[in-house]
Order: sequence, then structure tokens, then C-alpha cells
Amino acid sequence: MVSDLQGLFSTNARGMKKSIIRELLKLTRRPEVISFAGGLPDPNAFPIKEVGEIVLDVLAREGKIVLQYSPTEGDPKLKDELIAYHEQENGIKLNPDNILVTVASQQALDLVGKCFIDIGDPVIVGQPTYVGGLSAFHNYGARMIGVPLDEGGMRMDLLELELKKLKQAGKRPKFIYVIPDFQNPAGLTMNEERRRELLKLAREYDSLIVEDSPYRELRYEGESVKTIYALDGTGQVLGLHTFSKILFPGMRLGWVIGDEAVIQKLVTAKQATDLCTPAFTQAIVAEFMSRNLLSKVIDNVKSIYSEKMAIMLGALDDYMPDLAGLSWTRPEGGLFLWVTLPTHMNSEELFYEAIESNVAFVIGSAFDCTGEETNTMRLNFSFPSKDDIVEGIKRLAKVIEKSDLSHRKSGGIIATP
Amino acid sequence: MVSDLQGLFSTNARGMKKSIIRELLKLTRRPEVISFAGGLPDPNAFPIKEVGEIVLDVLAREGKIVLQYSPTEGDPKLKDELIAYHEQENGIKLNPDNILVTVASQQALDLVGKCFIDIGDPVIVGQPTYVGGLSAFHNYGARMIGVPLDEGGMRMDLLELELKKLKQAGKRPKFIYVIPDFQNPAGLTMNEERRRELLKLAREYDSLIVEDSPYRELRYEGESVKTIYALDGTGQVLGLHTFSKILFPGMRLGWVIGDEAVIQKLVTAKQATDLCTPAFTQAIVAEFMSRNLLSKVIDNVKSIYSEKMAIMLGALDDYMPDLAGLSWTRPEGGLFLWVTLPTHMNSEELFYEAIESNVAFVIGSAFDCTGEETNTMRLNFSFPSKDDIVEGIKRLAKVIEKSDLSHRKSGGIIATP
Repeated sequence: MVSDLQGLFSTNARGMKKSIIRELLKLTRRPEVISFAGGLPDPNAFPIKEVGEIVLDVLAREGKIVLQYSPTEGDPKLKDELIAYHEQENGIKLNPDNILVTVASQQALDLVGKCFIDIGDPVIVGQPTYVGGLSAFHNYGARMIGVPLDEGGMRMDLLELELKKLKQAGKRPKFIYVIPDFQNPAGLTMNEERRRELLKLAREYDSLIVEDSPYRELRYEGESVKTIYALDGTGQVLGLHTFSKILFPGMRLGWVIGDEAVIQKLVTAKQATDLCTPAFTQAIVAEFMSRNLLSKVIDNVKSIYSEKMAIMLGALDDYMPDLAGLSWTRPEGGLFLWVTLPTHMNSEELFYEAIESNVAFVIGSAFDCTGEETNTMRLNFSFPSKDDIVEGIKRLAKVIEKSDLSHRKSGGIIATP
Repeated sequence: MVSDLQGLFSTNARGMKKSIIRELLKLTRRPEVISFAGGLPDPNAFPIKEVGEIVLDVLAREGKIVLQYSPTEGDPKLKDELIAYHEQENGIKLNPDNILVTVASQQALDLVGKCFIDIGDPVIVGQPTYVGGLSAFHNYGARMIGVPLDEGGMRMDLLELELKKLKQAGKRPKFIYVIPDFQNPAGLTMNEERRRELLKLAREYDSLIVEDSPYRELRYEGESVKTIYALDGTGQVLGLHTFSKILFPGMRLGWVIGDEAVIQKLVTAKQATDLCTPAFTQAIVAEFMSRNLLSKVIDNVKSIYSEKMAIMLGALDDYMPDLAGLSWTRPEGGLFLWVTLPTHMNSEELFYEAIESNVAFVIGSAFDCTGEETNTMRLNFSFPSKDDIVEGIKRLAKVIEKSDLSHRKSGGIIATP
């Protein structure tokens, strides 16, 4: 074995941390634990039979091609399907050079990090935001600048303040990372006005926007809002998409859309990263789309998650104690909602108590680039069964109630009247 | 669009180059060109029928699991198969924590780069060596130090010289990258004595060895040599393996074996890179192995490639002009052989002449970390048909003969008597 292995690692590798969620999830694996912690899709919605049929057809028709190496940019057939999809769903016209097929969105986040971030470079993110985005950028040494959210997503006044500060220091952020639809973790959506404001600021301060849209199609209420990509049309936006939540994550397929010059750089980076995305899985999903099966799966997923979300919101209304400072978001879609606890509560302490009561969530600090958030938690409603959602929320309500009681007993109520 | 996109890119991204091979391959796409340029497996050896059967069984048995997210480290079932495989094939005992399943070997090379290389860090590579290794390390800013090969692979005397020089400068290489079996591009194999020397030097100079073994199983002649990993047993070696050449590349599956501490760091890096390797493809290949089908496919591949290699060597013997300085390697396995031209010939100039004669190869400079190699070329014999191998070598022989003639006419022969 080499000596001083730590010293052999790269600067960024020395700073890499294991995902907090992953470590906490290990505690939630007992079968009696009802977990709102993961972000898994409901496997009951996976179109297993259709995948089997398609695989046989694809292998019979082009087995020698789909088991071979394939272009780094992605399968031309899948790209054609994606072009048609974006034209229909988002009203945008793409050409194949605007698209890179990736090993799902996480690879897109990694490639964005690789192509844009030098150690210490500023990157603007929501506070909170998707933990996988934070890790991807952190692993290239980004200096993350968190911009708080309100019920309409990232606050534009605070964003402008940060952009101004950077400009005064002679800098610009490498990009602004947002999840405008049913944001992970908070479940919030930016309305069109907010998106236009963001675009305006990005142009004014000459910044790239990275728009991550893994949940966009999963809207259960209200009207769809145009993507920032669609509102732009000048190449100011890089759009990240994935099949993980609208079809299944087990084939690891996603795609990036953007200006040709940026896509070309991402392609060059991907070439040395994994040569190409599997031809096999790309061919399966392309065939799935060409048979018009995707919209059917999405409709099914929406009806399942919409009901589960309603059940979770109902259970929260029914069982949560009536405490000052306790609130939760009411998303219009997606997989998650976000609970804010009274400020005297610490969600990490609560996590261990919850685990003892056989219910789990993700602590809010995981999504906070400063790690300082102490009184929030993310709840997932896509994976647990409907019965488990009700039972789990009951358990969680009791844990919160108990924590509040012990706080009152300890006299804490006097300190925070 | 943002202004000064170049300035927004990371230092490493600005230095990224598109693969020369890829660009040259575009010229070889006319159907009339016989290409020895790619490194593609022969699709006639793909077990298409078996894959179809296995997919249906896997989906029926565990569809909800294989289309879901899965552990970053890899599918436990596939790991168990790989443990059994390495015990049988290489006589080494692994535990699951010694293995990380990757999106084929190229991802392993990328993760190694990510975890070990800071900009300017020295990395030792063969001269020539696999171009994808060079790009992966280059994209993290490695300073590549090339160590020439002789017919036994990397020269240990020259390696020691470089290690000594680095040590005198107070440095050590981040790792020594070798492909000991049927090296890409040269087709050369290190014998056991050379491997032991390498281990000895690595220990003496406290260096990690990255042993890349994509072709190891494809031996057509002679005795198998133990892997450096097997000769070591102390954690000095990271072993890279892939299904791309022994089964098919279209599912993008490979694996790394190594000391737990190194594997753990690679796992943490992979987490933020793509979350996990597709569960779907892992389950298919695990089932393929558990049915004892892998060795049958490997036997078939070996018999096909062995014959093709013999045909290529025979055609070279039969048709190449008898020129001083013209020679080629005689590999015992793998996919490639390496031609050295008389020093007055430039393989890049020859490439364009060859394309006009409808035959293609990869110029040697692509595999040279200095890019200075001018009179070598790599020939692939796994992909072209047997008839095309003979016809292609005839064409290539004529191109070389013509080049030599025009050199003589121009009086070059006088300059190099």
C-alpha cells in the first residue's frame, strides 16, 4: 500500500464528503421504518411489461447496433424523439447539436461542474437546493453562494444583491443553478414573472442559468409555466432533463439542451468521462417514446403522486400539532414537500427521535450550502404507500409534539414567547 | 448568450481537446473504406438471443428493483459474480468493499483522474498508451510523463529514471498507468518478471499502479501471466476491468478493484458523478454470469479474433514491401497491432493517402503523450471482416510502397542511407 494516501488524493477529492442523505438512509432501512427520506419513484408505475416487449423488438431489429459503442452525443433516434418532445411540450425548436444525452441528470451536473468550475469559483444556488447539485459543484471546488427562497422560489432581490457584490469584486458567477418547477427540496415553483426576472438579471450580469427540470412534467394542479429555456431563446440557459422521475431511474438516462458551443464542450468532456451513454438503454427509451407510451406513463405517475400528495397534505392538516412556526409547503407537483419547524427545534435531533418512532425524513441542512439550516425537513410522498403516508405523518406529528412539550417543560417557552 | 464563453469555462475545460481518433474516424465513414482505425468488437459475437431471454426473466423476477435507483458501489449480485470470477480467473480473493462497478473502464479512468490529479500533477504513462487514458488524465490537468516501451512493454530502466528524477524534485507520480496485457495500442504484453519489477519500483518509490486490463481474457497464444494486482496483494494496485471487449460495450459496464480506502474515495466521487450505474444493465450481466454464459462468449470471441489476427499478420507478411525500418508487433491477444514505419515516413501524411485508397488506421501520435510520434500506426483486427482484412492490408501495403518510392525519387534515400 502507498503511504500517505490522503496526500496522494487531489485537493477536491480530499474535500469530498459522503452524502449525508445516504448515511442517514442507512438508519432507515429497518422494515418497520416508514421513510419519507428517499426520493424514489413509485415502482408500481414502472411499465415493466412494455419494456420487456420493446427490448425483444429492439434486439431483434438492431441487436448488433445497440450492444455496440455509440456516439458520445447520444443516439440520433433518441435525439429526434427529444426534439419532437420539446417542440410539443415546451414549444421550443431544437436541433441535434443542441442536445447531449447523459447518464441521467447527475452526470449533466457533473459535466457542468467539470466544464465551468475552477477551485474557488463562485456558483449561485438556491438555499435550499438539490443536494446532488451541491455535491457535484462542491467536488470541483465551487464556492457556493446561497440565495434564499420565498414561496415563489429563489428571491430575485437577494439574487441581484449577490450578483452586484460579485460584479463589484470584478467577478461573475460561473452559473446560477435553479430548479424552477416543484423544486427539490422545497416543492416550490417559480411563476413566469419570476422566471423572466431571473432571465433579465442573468442577461444584465452576463450569467449562464442552469435550469434543472427533473419534475417539470409532474404537475398535479394549476397551469404549467414556460421553462426559462423557452422564455430565453438566446442561449443564456442550459436545460437539464431526465427520465428518472417520469419513466424510471434504473436505466440512468437524461439529456441536456443548450447553445451548441456549450453542448460541444460538454460532449468533449463526456468523451473522456465515459465515451458514450449506453446504446442499449437509449434505444429502448427511444422506442418507448416513438410508440407514444411516455405520455401514458406520465399520466399514470401523475395520478398516483397527485393522490399521495393530497393524502400527505391531508394527514399533515389532520395530525400536526398547532404550533407557532410550524408550517409546510403545498406544492403543485413533484415528489417533495418541505416542513419548517418552530425555530427552537433542531431537525437533526428530531431525526434520531423520529427513527426511534419508526419514521424518517431528510434533515434540511443537507440541502443548505452553508449547512446551517437547523429547523427544516424534506418529506417525500412518491415512494411510501398511501397507508404508510398517513401512519408516518401520525408518528412524525407525535415526535414533533413531544419535542415541543419537552421544550416547554424545560422553560424554553419563556425564552421565546 | 453570455459573452466570453471561453472565459467562463474552467481551466481544464479550456484545455480539453476533441479526440483525434474521433475526428479522423469521421473521414473513414464512407462504406468503401476498410477501416482498421476503430477499436470496436465484432458484433457477430454478441449474444443477442441470450440477452433477450435474460432481460425477460430479470424483468419478470425483479422489474421493480432493476428499474429503480441502486447503490453507488454496484449491484451486490454482480459484485458476488465478480468476486467468484476473479477468484477463478486470477486467483485473488476480493470482498465487496474492494469493488466499484462503473460505467465501463472509461468512467474508472475519469474517477481515478478526479480523485488523484490536481493541475500539473505528474502521472506516468506508457509511450504510447491508450488515448482514452491520456484524455481522462489530461482533462484534470495531469502532466504526463511518457515511458517508452520495448517488446516487453514499459521499460523499467527508463521508468526508474523518471521516478528518480521526480524523487529528486521532491515529488512522486500520482500513479503509474499500465496496460500489461496486449497493450492498446501496441499489442504488447509484460511478462511476469517485468510485472514484478514494476511492483518493486512502485513500492520503492511509494507509487500507486493503475493496471488497466480490458483485453486480458482475449489471449490467443502463449501462457496467461498473473495480473500485477494478483502479484501484489498489498493494495499497491488499482485494477480496471470492463465487459466491453469480452461481452459487449453497449451496456457500458466495467469495474475497479482495489484497496478499500481507494475504492471508498472513488465511490464518493462517483456518487456526485452519476449517483449509480444502471441497475437494469447490471442485473442483466449478473444473470448472464450466473448462468455461466460469459466464458462461452469469451471462447467464441477468442476464436474469431485469433483467426482474424492470424489473417492480418499473414497479409502483412505477404503484402508489405520489404523496407528497412518497416515492422509490426506480433501480439498474443487483444484487438490491435502496431506498425512502425521507416523514420522518413509520416503516418499522418500517410493517413490521408490511405483514405484516398479506401483504407484507414489510427496515427501513432494519438497515443503519444508528447504527440511527437510520427512514424507509427495502430491497426485493429477485431472489427473488419476476414476478407476486408486481406484487401485492406493490400491497399495499405501499396500506399506504403508508393510513399517509399516517392521518397526515393525525391532523393531522400541519399539522406538516410
